[in-house]
Amino acid sequence: MATINTRTGQVVDRSVLDSMLRRRLFYTPSFEIYGGVSGLYDYGPPGCAVLNNIVDLWRKHFVLEEDMLEVDCTMLTPHEILKTSGHVEKFADWMCKDPKTGEIFRADHLVEEVLESRLKGDKEARGQKVEVDEEKEAKKKRKSKQTKAVKLDDAVVKEYEEVLAQIDNFDGPALEKIIAKYDIRNPTTDGNLLPPVAFNLMFQTSIGPSSNMPGFLRPETAQGQFLNFHKLLDFNQQSMPFASASIGKSFRNEISPRAGLLRVREFLMAEIEHFVDPEGGKKHSRFAEVKDVELSLLNRDVQLSGRTQTEKMTIDKAVDSGLVDNETLGYFLARIQLFLLKLGVDPSKLRFRQHMANEMAHYAADCWDAELQTSYGWIECVGCADRSAYDLTVHKNKTGAPLVVREPRAEPLKIEEWQIDLDKKKFGPRFKKDGKTVEAAIEALSQDMREKLSLDLTQNGKIEVPVEGVGAGSVELDSELIKIEKRTRVENVREYTPNVIEPSFGIGRILYSMMEHVYWSREGDEARGVLSFPPAIAPTKVLIVPLSTHASFAPLSQRLMMSLRRMGISNRVDDSSASIGKRYARNDELGTPFGITVDFQSVKDQTFTLRDRDSTKQVRASEAEILQALKALVDGEETWEDVRKRLPEFTGQEVD
Amino acid sequence: MATINTRTGQVVDRSVLDSMLRRRLFYTPSFEIYGGVSGLYDYGPPGCAVLNNIVDLWRKHFVLEEDMLEVDCTMLTPHEILKTSGHVEKFADWMCKDPKTGEIFRADHLVEEVLESRLKGDKEARGQKVEVDEEKEAKKKRKSKQTKAVKLDDAVVKEYEEVLAQIDNFDGPALEKIIAKYDIRNPTTDGNLLPPVAFNLMFQTSIGPSSNMPGFLRPETAQGQFLNFHKLLDFNQQSMPFASASIGKSFRNEISPRAGLLRVREFLMAEIEHFVDPEGGKKHSRFAEVKDVELSLLNRDVQLSGRTQTEKMTIDKAVDSGLVDNETLGYFLARIQLFLLKLGVDPSKLRFRQHMANEMAHYAADCWDAELQTSYGWIECVGCADRSAYDLTVHKNKTGAPLVVREPRAEPLKIEEWQIDLDKKKFGPRFKKDGKTVEAAIEALSQDMREKLSLDLTQNGKIEVPVEGVGAGSVELDSELIKIEKRTRVENVREYTPNVIEPSFGIGRILYSMMEHVYWSREGDEARGVLSFPPAIAPTKVLIVPLSTHASFAPLSQRLMMSLRRMGISNRVDDSSASIGKRYARNDELGTPFGITVDFQSVKDQTFTLRDRDSTKQVRASEAEILQALKALVDGEETWEDVRKRLPEFTGQEVD
Repeated sequence: MATINTRTGQVVDRSVLDSMLRRRLFYTPSFEIYGGVSGLYDYGPPGCAVLNNIVDLWRKHFVLEEDMLEVDCTMLTPHEILKTSGHVEKFADWMCKDPKTGEIFRADHLVEEVLESRLKGDKEARGQKVEVDEEKEAKKKRKSKQTKAVKLDDAVVKEYEEVLAQIDNFDGPALEKIIAKYDIRNPTTDGNLLPPVAFNLMFQTSIGPSSNMPGFLRPETAQGQFLNFHKLLDFNQQSMPFASASIGKSFRNEISPRAGLLRVREFLMAEIEHFVDPEGGKKHSRFAEVKDVELSLLNRDVQLSGRTQTEKMTIDKAVDSGLVDNETLGYFLARIQLFLLKLGVDPSKLRFRQHMANEMAHYAADCWDAELQTSYGWIECVGCADRSAYDLTVHKNKTGAPLVVREPRAEPLKIEEWQIDLDKKKFGPRFKKDGKTVEAAIEALSQDMREKLSLDLTQNGKIEVPVEGVGAGSVELDSELIKIEKRTRVENVREYTPNVIEPSFGIGRILYSMMEHVYWSREGDEARGVLSFPPAIAPTKVLIVPLSTHASFAPLSQRLMMSLRRMGISNRVDDSSASIGKRYARNDELGTPFGITVDFQSVKDQTFTLRDRDSTKQVRASEAEILQALKALVDGEETWEDVRKRLPEFTGQEVD
Repeated sequence: MATINTRTGQVVDRSVLDSMLRRRLFYTPSFEIYGGVSGLYDYGPPGCAVLNNIVDLWRKHFVLEEDMLEVDCTMLTPHEILKTSGHVEKFADWMCKDPKTGEIFRADHLVEEVLESRLKGDKEARGQKVEVDEEKEAKKKRKSKQTKAVKLDDAVVKEYEEVLAQIDNFDGPALEKIIAKYDIRNPTTDGNLLPPVAFNLMFQTSIGPSSNMPGFLRPETAQGQFLNFHKLLDFNQQSMPFASASIGKSFRNEISPRAGLLRVREFLMAEIEHFVDPEGGKKHSRFAEVKDVELSLLNRDVQLSGRTQTEKMTIDKAVDSGLVDNETLGYFLARIQLFLLKLGVDPSKLRFRQHMANEMAHYAADCWDAELQTSYGWIECVGCADRSAYDLTVHKNKTGAPLVVREPRAEPLKIEEWQIDLDKKKFGPRFKKDGKTVEAAIEALSQDMREKLSLDLTQNGKIEVPVEGVGAGSVELDSELIKIEKRTRVENVREYTPNVIEPSFGIGRILYSMMEHVYWSREGDEARGVLSFPPAIAPTKVLIVPLSTHASFAPLSQRLMMSLRRMGISNRVDDSSASIGKRYARNDELGTPFGITVDFQSVKDQTFTLRDRDSTKQVRASEAEILQALKALVDGEETWEDVRKRLPEFTGQEVD
């Protein structure tokens, strides 16, 4: 899928970008000298620096800005917890096996691949121009037997397109039907496949020496936050609402990883769990600050009708109209957008897509994904789910831990209800070993049932109560043993299980997608790539280049380096013998936003030139002025345009 | 083991400190509502903040200061890599099983526990005062049958002490002998134990859907750095020496975790791999900067003689005398000390201990641990190992990847050597399918052998060369087929495998030990704990406390909060209705170094009081002055003493 850099109008050539990112060691396949493992990547120095900068910014934008409670929980997680949370049963993808070759396919990806390929064949047969994804194409030429220029019926084309629009909405049985209906087979051998089976995506291991404690690597950081809820509430001095946050690795044993950094088996997540009172419409006290933020929204109904049209809307209107369920969810959608834009994401390549019913995770009540457009299509980079009270409830029910909020009521609540008194003295001797079972059954009686039994008791002096497993399945009680009366109970404390709004960030996906957005190449020379990172995100902020290896430059470079380091501005001296142009070209590829040249004039009068990566324009000024300008640029207090207006332009050296 | 806060002279009561750290949510057992899992802990908000601050400082002190190449590699690691590195075979502890109860003991810990307990019993029997570790004591009373006041022979006491002094030096067979010799049994049941067997400490899992790729969670971050060596060397533009660095979680499936945060199954590491030319004595260009740093050293020989006496020495002298092997190792030992002191570590509780031969990891040529003294004894917090060329060599041999440095030689090297020429045309027909085997055997001949064979060939016109698996194990070659001559070869490029100096930091261990060092309690009131974190490390730098909930204070608190946030100084407003004293007491426990009080005077004249946590002294000044002072304090440019001298003291409010 071709994407365009909207600033330069250039088509983003993924293969060129990818090879540049690997050459500059932004990332590299893990264990490459051993042949590599698909879905595992290492970040080299510039990638690691960008990653750290994104995390820093995330912490400032979310955690510090809202006094969130950051926690760091273990990745190793015992089986029991993930059983309770539903992950053991439901955190799975569907896979199809080829019984002859042993190959394993992820079922939805297989359907996508085959139908897209047939649609392309159809277009070719109709003589239409086909957009070529070189990588996919090469892969297919290598192995596929199904890509042929075959014309399809118009109705079939429509059906395929509808299937593809809602591909994320199908479960195993649905995928099985589609595979059968459209005769989808192993693209390489044309062999038939076995029906899809669920494959759990968690990595399993065993904790301790006796191998009797099975465990998993966590699939999300969320569970650790939920399990600590009541301690966090204590820490927050019982004040609601509040949010916890966590930054750390999570794991997914993908069936067949593809798409580089976008679908990996080990990845950095940053997750927020915002705990909110489910009553009162989930308002947010700072919603007013973001209400005018305009988002591109792709709602559920549009997708189900087989289309992908987004609608621009302020978050205020989206919440008001009910499209986005509540203020808290809306507040975070807007804050997510503000964060992504700070990173350098192209606003025209950002949309929020609502999940369809079957697509939602097992715990979610509503969910919007922030998706970024890349050459791989629209990629989910941030999920923002309303997990309702699901997790706290299941863990509370399993462990009995008080994962609830208890609040004094402003006005005591008066409740009219049917209460039951048992005469314990007579009750024991009467039921003996069944006593507890009977008592529990009575306690569990509903208000309606109590009302009915109260009437019976008044009329007949005895009642029949169903008790499973005792006698013939019920016991008889007379008015000596039991009393049922309508009384008023006063509740001074309100107890509730908070709902959870969860913005969940895939940092690696954001990083890769953002790099596609900021990548371009200098006019006329495709090999000269540039990454236009915003200064806050760039791995290195300043490159210091002495004009040559002349001895008089070294002390000045060194002094600039130390000054910048003291100001907390990361920088590097490149005093290699390569030409200035070459040294700048290397740093364009690394995304270094600013360069200082040390030349003979500098030795004479202690002035330096400052170069802007994107425009390659330069200014010349004193050391103090240059350092002050850099501080303002890196802190985001001035733009390059501001600096260029203040300081004299310099056009001397040839740096291209 | 009792430790003393050297500043206050107070005994550190570990149980009080521990309960405070848990109450304030510095850390908490993971999955506690499910009963917990030993060796797994979560960090709550203040613990997580201190952890992040330590990591930040580490990055500044090491990575940025020396332009190290930071990388982020995956934790999931295929079996093959850890097989090559030696971890599959050797990364193990020795465990003993009780065949009756099924209990599993870590063998060295069991020996320690039992011998220490017998020595204590001996002291009691001799009427000596016994230092009581309450936690251990309670545990023993609960379960041990071996703690009795039994007098031992003087010779036995000496033997026990010698065993304990070198407990880390014993392998499995040695532990088996000790267990047999001293009749060490299950302390609870007195039952006999099976001999120690090796238990591999790596967590195992399986990568991908077909379970045919076994893998582990990494036991260290180092392997990822080694595997990327040649890419990092490229990135560093072929310049040596250089260091890579990595911060991330590693895993050890401990047999029986104990000692809280000190022995855990999942932990944050920060590791440096400094690659250095093995020739030229491993000099370091910045050694002069640290040469006068004085360290407490505990060398190998002292330990082997059963003693633990340290010696104070400048690193210059330690390297000069050969005690520390080389400048690079010495440079890092000094830098490690400087780092630990920045964190607030008590210098009198820091020593560097050299590893004994059997204790060293399988890859290490020499190793010094920075150990911190705690109530659990001396704890290894940083290891600094010379891994020589071990790792790069084994991975290079296994994969053939060029994990070497190639340098042009300043002067070409001339090498006299015996070279062999084969007549390939005759060679092929003569040996047919064995040709390659014979050729390889000939190529592998040593220089000495070649010289000898050259003589034979001259004398007899033919030679006998041993070739395994061909003919009767040797082949005959005549001078038609082979020539052996002494010639001069010129090498313009030098190729070598770098050695690695590895400083490896256990961040969690450093955190806990440091907290023991900075903990004390306000005189006369044991329950009022204080954590005297240096400002750079403290979770929150400034507490803002309005005198009361009076409405006029809120705007001022809010303004201070926003100003501090803009300055990047983390702060919290506590406007709860608790007394000022209570609010400060809570923040003493959280280690918040400074407090600003907002009172009626502030409303009138916009002045505020600034309080120092350690002295509880206060000054009063204008908003601008207070903010400027805080900036200087947090950046470490001024001490509290400096500020107190400059600004007028304030003694008004009662804040204790």
